[in-house]
Amino acid sequence: MYNRVTEADITALKAICGETNVLCGDAINPDYAHDELGGISHMPEVLVRVHSTEEISCVMRHAWERTIPVTVRGSGTGLVGAAVPICGGILLETTPMNKILSLDADNLTVTVQPGVLLMELAAFAEENDFLYPPDPGEKSATIGGNISTNAGGMRAVKYGVTRDYVRSLTVVLPNGEIQTFGAAVAKNSSGYSLKDMIIGSEGTLAIICEAVLKLVPLPKVSLSLLVPFPDMKQAIEAVPQIIRSKVTPTAIEYMSRDTILFSETYLGKKFPDTKNDAYILLTFDGNTEEQVDRDLSTVAELCLQLGALDAYIVDTEERKKSVWSARGAFLEAIKSSTTEMDECDVVVPGNQVDTFIKYTHQLAKEFGVRIPSFGHAGDGNLHVYICRDALSDADWEQIKADCFDRMYEKAVELGGLVSGEHGIGYAKKEYLRRQYGPTPIALMQGIKKVFDEKNILNPGKVCF
Amino acid sequence: MYNRVTEADITALKAICGETNVLCGDAINPDYAHDELGGISHMPEVLVRVHSTEEISCVMRHAWERTIPVTVRGSGTGLVGAAVPICGGILLETTPMNKILSLDADNLTVTVQPGVLLMELAAFAEENDFLYPPDPGEKSATIGGNISTNAGGMRAVKYGVTRDYVRSLTVVLPNGEIQTFGAAVAKNSSGYSLKDMIIGSEGTLAIICEAVLKLVPLPKVSLSLLVPFPDMKQAIEAVPQIIRSKVTPTAIEYMSRDTILFSETYLGKKFPDTKNDAYILLTFDGNTEEQVDRDLSTVAELCLQLGALDAYIVDTEERKKSVWSARGAFLEAIKSSTTEMDECDVVVPGNQVDTFIKYTHQLAKEFGVRIPSFGHAGDGNLHVYICRDALSDADWEQIKADCFDRMYEKAVELGGLVSGEHGIGYAKKEYLRRQYGPTPIALMQGIKKVFDEKNILNPGKVCF
Repeated sequence: MYNRVTEADITALKAICGETNVLCGDAINPDYAHDELGGISHMPEVLVRVHSTEEISCVMRHAWERTIPVTVRGSGTGLVGAAVPICGGILLETTPMNKILSLDADNLTVTVQPGVLLMELAAFAEENDFLYPPDPGEKSATIGGNISTNAGGMRAVKYGVTRDYVRSLTVVLPNGEIQTFGAAVAKNSSGYSLKDMIIGSEGTLAIICEAVLKLVPLPKVSLSLLVPFPDMKQAIEAVPQIIRSKVTPTAIEYMSRDTILFSETYLGKKFPDTKNDAYILLTFDGNTEEQVDRDLSTVAELCLQLGALDAYIVDTEERKKSVWSARGAFLEAIKSSTTEMDECDVVVPGNQVDTFIKYTHQLAKEFGVRIPSFGHAGDGNLHVYICRDALSDADWEQIKADCFDRMYEKAVELGGLVSGEHGIGYAKKEYLRRQYGPTPIALMQGIKKVFDEKNILNPGKVCF
Repeated sequence: MYNRVTEADITALKAICGETNVLCGDAINPDYAHDELGGISHMPEVLVRVHSTEEISCVMRHAWERTIPVTVRGSGTGLVGAAVPICGGILLETTPMNKILSLDADNLTVTVQPGVLLMELAAFAEENDFLYPPDPGEKSATIGGNISTNAGGMRAVKYGVTRDYVRSLTVVLPNGEIQTFGAAVAKNSSGYSLKDMIIGSEGTLAIICEAVLKLVPLPKVSLSLLVPFPDMKQAIEAVPQIIRSKVTPTAIEYMSRDTILFSETYLGKKFPDTKNDAYILLTFDGNTEEQVDRDLSTVAELCLQLGALDAYIVDTEERKKSVWSARGAFLEAIKSSTTEMDECDVVVPGNQVDTFIKYTHQLAKEFGVRIPSFGHAGDGNLHVYICRDALSDADWEQIKADCFDRMYEKAVELGGLVSGEHGIGYAKKEYLRRQYGPTPIALMQGIKKVFDEKNILNPGKVCF
């Protein structure tokens, strides 16, 4: 079906991208075979590092003509194998395209290349007195990756998700053609939104080469509040009450003592409080201290009424760092606490978070495995990790499959979806299929064919 | 290509929807042949009023089998002929599906049928202490229509557009199948966003039967500020400065004295001030009087520095009514000032608004026609109207075509798009084609075929 990469292909790719940007065989670091979780693994035949839209266009024209599969990779921080070249072929790495091209302060937009890291964009925006609101936990992900999974992050409660901040995308289509979908404007009713089709398509429809992103003015004040609760049920049940209180926090994260302790071990740093079973961590932002203080006090009082044991304002730089670096390290911390793990990124209606988490506790007991979790209590997006610990190969595969089956079923039963922000990639295809049934999958396959008749761009992912 | 509607079809449709909900021939009010602007006109063979998703599904199954075209119509407030049954066939009216089905106060969502009017949803949300942020000028449009054009409205500056508030859509596909895309959740990375494909597709891909929409807590305070400027240039140039001042108004509308005078005549009501050439009207909302007052003062001061002649706080109920009812009546007022008109709904980057408006003034002089405009200065979406007045048929057609050619070219040159919120429908297809070129149009046509192989749903619109 696909052609193998030949010497002639290598020569052609080197002519396009330069000798040093085309690597084969042992010259390719084995890490390129997998993403952050590592459960899905396949080496590319050739690794190509691209530096411009034109290079990508030429690479794709060549791949299209020769029917060679191409998989795009940013920082490789994905968790579902979306950037794994499961059919071999070309792995196209966009990290050298890491320039912030321009800032339009009048129109509140920034134009970036896909390899810019989230943390670089966040810092750039802040230096210029703006905020790029999407704030996924993994700060070293590329913006291209964030757009490809429609990453949501912590601030979705107040600010929404990546999709809400993408004004336009310049892409290379599978046949090498360069196109721009959308424009640097605030409204768009000009035909079907091809831009929105690319967002969240995990590199299967087109290659993102440039993005115009919306910024907001940087709020002048931002404060966090750490609220311990006697148990997870009370903690989570407070969340809809907080949202209904008309104070819109920027973020509402939940965390269990277990997860915090892993993080303390992993970072070698103390968390301000670990006496209690469950915590919610909130952020508030605004333009005046009075307003943010008032919001924070309203919520602190409400939480105390709802059974919170305390409410710590995270105001010193040191406290802020200890709390948010712990939050940022949860994934790595859980990973380092076990031999292997797999994750589930379901999203449920906000008031079903408690039900879902309790269900994972029940599963953990039933199957005798650890299932730590953390996540975005405010928006219903949970990151749940099944830990292998000392399980045998056979037990691990069986228990993992059984737990996933049950968790995804439960999420759907509660009105949720299989992925809130990590995507489907290769690992979660079966669960997407079960959730949607044949018609939506057939529509997605049809759309995939419209963009990529030869199925050369990231084949075997999402809906195939 | 299509079958004509026969007696047998009528009998079948009556069996599905009931005798009184299926009208033919002279029983159909001629207004069903056109939308608000009326320039495009074609009678349906049969008008079918539907009351449920199941009825729509049965009608579509019948139409699919018989290859009869179906066009969906809400309130008929469109301006580009999207709801005109240009191939005849069935006109499917969704206004009887006008129920607000449920409010989920925990998850801040409301579930509605497509025929609910924007003003009904706005009032319902407010009664329940919530805000449905999208606020297009035409309050008697249906929500189904708003979603079908991704309507933006006045509050887009702060709150975004309809797309940002659609959590899920239950639709009937052209073959009659019922599907739900998305879910009542805040994040979604579960395959290609079919929901976002339907939004803005102007009834060409599927029929919207139910929508879960996001609400926000109702801000406790909302105030408007009316700011007269000596000319449009100064008025419009103040807008990016306001946006950069970190005060985010809910809305920034601009209006010229001309337009205000039409509106006074049309409504028979005085506007608070008509001495000056250009005005901007701003709204601010928030949870405390102090905060809103501060925002308002900051902007008032800034405007005065930038050449404003005054800054009226619109605080009494009477003033509010006179200002916003004038704003709401601009389209009708301009329409009633002339014999016929056509409109252009371009969107340009915010800081190009002034350039574009000056260009329309230049065109008006060059062609000797009136081209009044108003619109959303804060988000770059302009509503520009060419008035026929006393022109002959031939002159009108020629001048209209020439002016449109020039305006759309200019919008694209300034980095804009042909439609911000009114859509493409039938009237603007040629301009969409010119803007995008063959590849995006071919992709849209491909997507249309994936959803509607027989091309029976609203044929001849958007990309065909």
